[in-house]
Amino acid sequence: MSEKELFDIVFLPDQVTVKAAVGESVLDVANRGGLHINASCGGEGVCGRCVVELRGGDVEASPGLFLSDEEFKNKLRLSCRAKCNGPARIFIPLESRGDASFFKKATQADESVKVDVLDPTIKETCLILTPPSHEDNASDFDRINSALNDLGLTDLDIDLAALREMPKVLREGNFKVKLAINNDIAIQNPEAPPYARIVSIRPQEGSDDYYAIAVDVGTTSVWARLVNLFTGETLPSVADLNGQISFGEDVISRIVYADRKDGLQKLQRQVIDTINRLLERLEELYPGYRRKTYLMFVAGNTTMSHLLVGVPPKNIRLAPYVPPAATWPTLKANYLGLNVEPHTVMKIFPAVSSYVGGDIVSGVLASGFYKREELTLFIDVGTNGEIVIGNSDWMTCAACSAGPAFEGGGVRCGMRAAPGAIENFFYDPAAKKHYLGVIGNGPPSGVCGSGLINVVAELFRAGVVNKQGRYVEGSAPLIRAGEDGLEYLLAPASESAGNHDVVITEIDIENLIRAKGAMFSGYQTLVEAVGLRLGDLERVIIAGGFGKSLNLENAIEIGLLPNLPLEKFLYIGNGSLSGATLAALSANMWRVAHEIKKKMTNFELSETPGYMDKYVASQFLPHTDASLFANG
Amino acid sequence: MSEKELFDIVFLPDQVTVKAAVGESVLDVANRGGLHINASCGGEGVCGRCVVELRGGDVEASPGLFLSDEEFKNKLRLSCRAKCNGPARIFIPLESRGDASFFKKATQADESVKVDVLDPTIKETCLILTPPSHEDNASDFDRINSALNDLGLTDLDIDLAALREMPKVLREGNFKVKLAINNDIAIQNPEAPPYARIVSIRPQEGSDDYYAIAVDVGTTSVWARLVNLFTGETLPSVADLNGQISFGEDVISRIVYADRKDGLQKLQRQVIDTINRLLERLEELYPGYRRKTYLMFVAGNTTMSHLLVGVPPKNIRLAPYVPPAATWPTLKANYLGLNVEPHTVMKIFPAVSSYVGGDIVSGVLASGFYKREELTLFIDVGTNGEIVIGNSDWMTCAACSAGPAFEGGGVRCGMRAAPGAIENFFYDPAAKKHYLGVIGNGPPSGVCGSGLINVVAELFRAGVVNKQGRYVEGSAPLIRAGEDGLEYLLAPASESAGNHDVVITEIDIENLIRAKGAMFSGYQTLVEAVGLRLGDLERVIIAGGFGKSLNLENAIEIGLLPNLPLEKFLYIGNGSLSGATLAALSANMWRVAHEIKKKMTNFELSETPGYMDKYVASQFLPHTDASLFANG
Repeated sequence: MSEKELFDIVFLPDQVTVKAAVGESVLDVANRGGLHINASCGGEGVCGRCVVELRGGDVEASPGLFLSDEEFKNKLRLSCRAKCNGPARIFIPLESRGDASFFKKATQADESVKVDVLDPTIKETCLILTPPSHEDNASDFDRINSALNDLGLTDLDIDLAALREMPKVLREGNFKVKLAINNDIAIQNPEAPPYARIVSIRPQEGSDDYYAIAVDVGTTSVWARLVNLFTGETLPSVADLNGQISFGEDVISRIVYADRKDGLQKLQRQVIDTINRLLERLEELYPGYRRKTYLMFVAGNTTMSHLLVGVPPKNIRLAPYVPPAATWPTLKANYLGLNVEPHTVMKIFPAVSSYVGGDIVSGVLASGFYKREELTLFIDVGTNGEIVIGNSDWMTCAACSAGPAFEGGGVRCGMRAAPGAIENFFYDPAAKKHYLGVIGNGPPSGVCGSGLINVVAELFRAGVVNKQGRYVEGSAPLIRAGEDGLEYLLAPASESAGNHDVVITEIDIENLIRAKGAMFSGYQTLVEAVGLRLGDLERVIIAGGFGKSLNLENAIEIGLLPNLPLEKFLYIGNGSLSGATLAALSANMWRVAHEIKKKMTNFELSETPGYMDKYVASQFLPHTDASLFANG
Repeated sequence: MSEKELFDIVFLPDQVTVKAAVGESVLDVANRGGLHINASCGGEGVCGRCVVELRGGDVEASPGLFLSDEEFKNKLRLSCRAKCNGPARIFIPLESRGDASFFKKATQADESVKVDVLDPTIKETCLILTPPSHEDNASDFDRINSALNDLGLTDLDIDLAALREMPKVLREGNFKVKLAINNDIAIQNPEAPPYARIVSIRPQEGSDDYYAIAVDVGTTSVWARLVNLFTGETLPSVADLNGQISFGEDVISRIVYADRKDGLQKLQRQVIDTINRLLERLEELYPGYRRKTYLMFVAGNTTMSHLLVGVPPKNIRLAPYVPPAATWPTLKANYLGLNVEPHTVMKIFPAVSSYVGGDIVSGVLASGFYKREELTLFIDVGTNGEIVIGNSDWMTCAACSAGPAFEGGGVRCGMRAAPGAIENFFYDPAAKKHYLGVIGNGPPSGVCGSGLINVVAELFRAGVVNKQGRYVEGSAPLIRAGEDGLEYLLAPASESAGNHDVVITEIDIENLIRAKGAMFSGYQTLVEAVGLRLGDLERVIIAGGFGKSLNLENAIEIGLLPNLPLEKFLYIGNGSLSGATLAALSANMWRVAHEIKKKMTNFELSETPGYMDKYVASQFLPHTDASLFANG
């Protein structure tokens, strides 16, 4: 690019100026400037979400599939298809933005995350050495080694940075120093003696606190939390949108993008940048924490883990769906580009399979159900929904390809659970009126996944939607004929934020039924595969961001969750982050995570007899077999 | 510097142009341009060796201590004291250059370096895996792990680069691949199970050869050799001047320089650049070897090891002379800046003390005397001479501060053993004539250390030099009065290369006597400390570059070597490089190196009773106690 002529593209409303060359797509240029534009399809030109408005200059583009001639005349462009050909001013409308403002505040600490024994993988140890003399002239490193023999550490290694600082720190501290020692348990062979390594040496001064960072790398959002390894205290977490979102909203579009030229490097850069932003925010909260941060425990789904490390994820989506890695070596976090000290070691949660990842292993660890006797269903609802069934004796798991409906995808007015999304919906059958609950309390601009469930459940309960997921004509005044058949008007353009009608179409309901059916038939298959029935379930644990806003009764009403008494359900929030926190606090928990991974038997549902029949049978509200939902 | 105005300094005869700023020394600018100027004192302005000639422009300088007014008028300058103040053209005369041409050819392979069992630390292993299927869907890495269980490797780790390549290489090779596995023995705890790590994965194709590099980092020169770990073959070695030589000729001046601002980084950069040049030359000899080179075993003295790794060496020269490190962690060679693949692991020989380094441990390993019963003296003659005495049961060692005479330093017409150096000298007492042997067979420009020994021994034998090291007036026609008293004219200016008389002064002889006395009294002290006498020595092993050109009879004549039958002496050449080669071939040899280090008891001679008396008694030719050299 250095050889080409460069010009300025100014992005509005942020007033961010980015240099561009002829032929670059507006989407790529925006990404380079750190601006997130929705591009569910990964910039393939097939989702139509990345609309921008040309406010000055010109770009090379045609209306294509998603823009009407009038929209095109009004200077709307698909940013992934529009090629720069000179200076331009481009406005990114709210609907096209990956809105990160939602995450811009620290959330509360998770009080529930506790360990019995505080036993982190890297511990700080205070060492008081005899200074050298002519009679006792062992080298500095040998001196430290022999002092540590008492701890059973006989074959110590040392980080280069620590070695270089050692002579100065020893003498400045008058041979009284604090060492951070990585005392790794061999995961696969717990009988092996620990592999010990000095990762840091510093004077014995200041506070005794030292830290680990727990990270949950989600497809949509990334969470990080500081954990105090000296006190065991779990500190508040911070979150941000995963910067990869500009390259596709789901794991499949990311995997496809990673296979492009430099695609893997770009995606890796995005998630590293995202984590670096979170590390900066932690710096504001806990100045100077980095110098005393030795560990980073990361949980993410299988694709996110591969993209973070920079391992090509291609085979995850190719039969027989074997991921390159399901366990990970210990890495130096700074080698991946993270802004941490060289002594910060990164450990990544093991995965079970291509679609049951480290985030689920971490969630199961956090839920504690692996050590309890009750038959438990662990469920994480999403585009790629994961389910685990079992107890302390056994566990089976599977991934359900539910499609994007739960995350507002494939839905006419769908959107993520961000400000402007209709989340709650109450229908008054007597007055034939509805009431909306909108995230952020402003005018609505769309419906998020949990909102869609609430709308359909309420309308089904009121008889406005029938078992087949069709509107009953004349049952409600807001039903009307639309482009895709009948639709229900949630908010007219005049009352919406986006200046367009917010509706739920029959196709939207169809997509929701497909999604909930995929989840339901998934756990039904797992339960029956071990000779049990859904009624045998004693506990249902709901994990993941989606569960937070889920109305249990409505989720049962549409047949997403099993028909059990409400007190059997437990929501554990971001179990993936909680599990990473536990591993940070205790080397034993990290070992247990690997045991959980090994214990879990993975089912490929598409290969499992009976699954397709169950899936077809689930394509009703709540189900073709009404007995499954009797007395709900 | 970026803020200052820069100008060109052109160095002749090489025509190398380097940018400089006002106030920089000519020596620093030359170094930045990769030009070596002699500066024995490390640029302190006290050795007078870095003379250059101003051929254009100007520099800021005064005559100072080393230049006569006439020399100054003739535009000679000390490059370390001359400050740039504008563009200039500067000629570096031959006498001031670190002449590296001497090393510019590959030497012969060392046939004597052999191991009983070829057992390198990193081995290539061929793996034929069952491709994954729906029934057998373990991840790629787990698949490799379970296949390697048969080798007893149950807790494998993997390098990041190998992990990233793994999915592609596995599939391209149809799951038939070659892995390079680091199977480290725990040095301090040999009972511990090996720590195993996959460092490389590649298709099973092409030749089976794979390599290690053995390196000897000497204060003056650096040697490297490729070792074929598949065949056990030892390939020819290459050598070059250690680029640090521009910052001082001996370890003390390097340690002093390292303590300056950025000094350590500069010295490290120099030795890394030197090794990188050798790696390039190996590339010419064995194209493509880097991809299949997994190990690098480095032996060097304690200071060289610290400078290579970048650990401040300051404490090496401060009482109680405790080095920061005497054992070293395994390092990734590329982290230090070496141009090798990320999978190349570097191991550095352990040292005994600040002045008995890894080169001596490596030499003792190569000599094999640690496993023999004869009482052996191992001796490495040099500015810092090292001696080891012992056998398979015990070993003591010490360093002798001999001063620079053996390397041509502190001698009026002294020089390194490079072309132009007088190396051989024969005196015909009848004709009172001498014959010179000059390295490279050109006209002489000076005398190297072994040449000095030969001159003094021959003249002593002929009665031209007496026991006190003084010239006997009138005993030879070429004795004349000089600035420093009497001197012997080896070659007049008209016959010399440097256009100056080549002489040996009485001060030169004094310096040699001091040097040989330091060595002699050193090993005498060690032998007597264990209740033995020099006559009990059954074997003398001479190691190091200096020994190559040493005339044994002459060395005994002046009292440097003990008075033993010549057949008891063995010259092992570059034992440091040979030992590194052995360690490359066998993990067990590497373990033995650490046993040798532990077995060796270090004596600080200056602290040892009786040493000073013995040193004073040795200040004659050959010794005050003539009985020690009777029947020589």
